Amino acid sequence: MYIQLDFESEIPIYTQLKQQIIAGIAKEELRPNDALPSVRSMAKDIGINLHTVNKAYQQLKQEGYILIHRQKGVVIHPDGVEPADDAYRSTLKSTLRPLIAESICKNISKEEFAGYVNTLFAEFKKEGNDK
Amino acid sequence: MYIQLDFESEIPIYTQLKQQIIAGIAKEELRPNDALPSVRSMAKDIGINLHTVNKAYQQLKQEGYILIHRQKGVVIHPDGVEPADDAYRSTLKSTLRPLIAESICKNISKEEFAGYVNTLFAEFKKEGNDK
Repeated sequence: MYIQLDFESEIPIYTQLKQQIIAGIAKEELRPNDALPSVRSMAKDIGINLHTVNKAYQQLKQEGYILIHRQKGVVIHPDGVEPADDAYRSTLKSTLRPLIAESICKNISKEEFAGYVNTLFAEFKKEGNDK
Repeated sequence: MYIQLDFESEIPIYTQLKQQIIAGIAKEELRPNDALPSVRSMAKDIGINLHTVNKAYQQLKQEGYILIHRQKGVVIHPDGVEPADDAYRSTLKSTLRPLIAESICKNISKEEFAGYVNTLFAEFKKEGNDK
């Protein structure tokens, strides 16, 4: 899996790394039990600090995307990611709400916004990886 | 306009304040030229620090939601908010992308996600405030 970071972005590097691994799982480029590089080698590969990789991995672990084994190393969670629960759905809506308020102020219609959602879903769900 | 802050939230207070003012504009509870309380009185009214209000107001000003007059005080931008440009659309898509990746991992379908978008648009666009 190819990790691409934008060092000019306002989004912290650990968040970018985390988001790209989640994107890899969404695209099914990363599947349950797939190995990820160790903290040390990921840091070396992409030229960032150990602590930055560690922060991304710890959050991914906490959110159930990966397991960190002392011996087997870092793997995509063997059981797959837990389906969304009510708390996740509520957080999702709270995150979408200000984005939609902003879009309304800037004259983006519901149809245009829904179009972006459609396109982005299609970006992840290419042919052949429908669950 | 009633400002409701959640001091337990991970979202910084200045961001919450900013988001609520933008939500007020989206709902057309706040209209062009409407006055907002001064930094000082907003801070006093909602019991937060002057600097926190100032940070929210400065960002709202920079993003074209409000004007800060030395004499007339703080008002909702008289010309309305600038419609979205390409840069805004691109930022919007970059913000939606990780949310959608996460949702896919958690088995939220495109239809469910689009349903939240619909509901949230409806929340802001009540009868009688269609533009």
